[in-house]
Amino acid sequence: MELRKDPIVDRWVVFSTERVSRPFGFIPDSHDYDSHSFCPFCEGNETSTPPETLCFGRKEGAPANGAGWSLRVVPNKFPALSMGGALKRVKEGMYDAMSGIGASEVVIETPTHDLTLANMSVPQAAQLFSAVKERFVFFQKSPELKCAQFFKNHGYMAGASLPHSHSQIIAMPLVSKLLGEEMDGAEKYFKDKGRCVYCDIIADESGSGERLVYLNSKFLVTTPYASRFPYETWILPTFHSSQFEQTHPNSILMLADAVTQTLKRMTVTLGDVPYNMVLHTSPFHSNQKGYYHWHLEIFPIQGKEAGFERGSGFHINSTAPEQAAVLLREAI
Amino acid sequence: MELRKDPIVDRWVVFSTERVSRPFGFIPDSHDYDSHSFCPFCEGNETSTPPETLCFGRKEGAPANGAGWSLRVVPNKFPALSMGGALKRVKEGMYDAMSGIGASEVVIETPTHDLTLANMSVPQAAQLFSAVKERFVFFQKSPELKCAQFFKNHGYMAGASLPHSHSQIIAMPLVSKLLGEEMDGAEKYFKDKGRCVYCDIIADESGSGERLVYLNSKFLVTTPYASRFPYETWILPTFHSSQFEQTHPNSILMLADAVTQTLKRMTVTLGDVPYNMVLHTSPFHSNQKGYYHWHLEIFPIQGKEAGFERGSGFHINSTAPEQAAVLLREAI
Repeated sequence: MELRKDPIVDRWVVFSTERVSRPFGFIPDSHDYDSHSFCPFCEGNETSTPPETLCFGRKEGAPANGAGWSLRVVPNKFPALSMGGALKRVKEGMYDAMSGIGASEVVIETPTHDLTLANMSVPQAAQLFSAVKERFVFFQKSPELKCAQFFKNHGYMAGASLPHSHSQIIAMPLVSKLLGEEMDGAEKYFKDKGRCVYCDIIADESGSGERLVYLNSKFLVTTPYASRFPYETWILPTFHSSQFEQTHPNSILMLADAVTQTLKRMTVTLGDVPYNMVLHTSPFHSNQKGYYHWHLEIFPIQGKEAGFERGSGFHINSTAPEQAAVLLREAI
Repeated sequence: MELRKDPIVDRWVVFSTERVSRPFGFIPDSHDYDSHSFCPFCEGNETSTPPETLCFGRKEGAPANGAGWSLRVVPNKFPALSMGGALKRVKEGMYDAMSGIGASEVVIETPTHDLTLANMSVPQAAQLFSAVKERFVFFQKSPELKCAQFFKNHGYMAGASLPHSHSQIIAMPLVSKLLGEEMDGAEKYFKDKGRCVYCDIIADESGSGERLVYLNSKFLVTTPYASRFPYETWILPTFHSSQFEQTHPNSILMLADAVTQTLKRMTVTLGDVPYNMVLHTSPFHSNQKGYYHWHLEIFPIQGKEAGFERGSGFHINSTAPEQAAVLLREAI
């Protein structure tokens, strides 16, 4: 048994490998999405989503919101946040609130109903990250928006309402707590040592190889030293960059390679488990920072959620990242 | 749509009540625990747990680890942390680790296999909190332990491996991230205003009544202003106290009343949903603090977990706490 500290934020994780002996594993999503029910994300059903804000693949001159696309971005029909009205800060007795200005969009990653991101070709998957980049560039023009969160829920247990491969972007008037903590932790490390902590992690992990899952010419995939969850992976650009939306198209292809490689390996190792993928990148208008380094985090979801972690902020992980890395590395 | 800030920690929650129109509700735990399988927590099966560290209800002179008890505390067979060896801090390359010293115990709350905490009498439920208090007093004698976490997972989806009503105590050589943040936030508020933020919340919530669920002579139950999860409740002593283990036996009875009232109301409103209950209390040896205020937090678990929150630290809540409070308040 060992406690490990995350090198960026002040978070300790308990590694309790004895717990592996419990029947506490990953199970494929048991939820049956009704395969006969209408899918608003399929080609031909474009009118059942709000009008698209971005589309790839449609022939020039073809009308918007028709068939013939390879990727669409549409506003979320059930938005968490939406634009309209000015940002207002309110005091409610002893409490603070602000109006929920922002945007919620859905990226429909493919017209094919049952093609998962894990099974996409690299150019297909690259479309997703190009679309996210374009929408980030668009959202940062709005002076009231501070940052955007890109995330993907795969599988019912991970929060996906529909099985058709999609992901989400939420643009927000504030910086999420965890991102704020990461920015602070990375800045502190930089002030202490004069180096980016993520660049140090990349040097360390590509050197030791113990927690290395995959490496291509631009991206490293690693199971982090203080992984909160079994088989948690981080995908980091090996070059220093604090803002995802500045990523060059060539690097986006290499990112798509790293992501599909990671998901394929995860599927081989754990089965088609539900997972969340979350992009961590600098807030808008923060310029290129020397100390922060954007990356993607992927967490497979276990069949049963040890929700205690939600209430305590305290994580117990049954799988050493070194063990997870071996299995993921050797899966293909 | 509205964003609300937690008054203690720097955490904003998006309230997206439009999302209620989605079929995204609470579902009873669909997992069938095998009702014919052997239960190590039932009376008569005492030898299938490690030897008890505390027992209530057994007749004087009766041998330990036999039948005739009303509550037992036993070491966890699959401990997250355990005692033995000195606490060692290690540097692993750029990373920090320490040996996983601590303790993991299970409180078997009743000898009756299918009696839930929600359905216990007040004296039965009070036993649980008396036991937790005794074990906290015991653990704080160990100089290497900094704090203990008491939590309960009810239902498979909430992380309970066995259906027989039980809860857990983990004693740790460090303070969890979330507790550290709460202590810091509460201290800052105290320095600014000279008052305990939780005492202010109690005054505000018992005054307005908008988010009030239940109130007895010693405890207030409220749905917090910036609830992260639908139907999240906090149970706070109305008197200022920073350390749970200093609670007087009379107050423990009133706590048991508040907890069972809350769980009964939750069950009437949402069905027998899985939930987590977590105690937030000061670290050991921190003396009685003017600024921190112990309390219990309860989170019902929705059938499908929006795990994105885990990776982002960003919460979207579909149910206003004012709406949850009305339903919980009027449930009985």
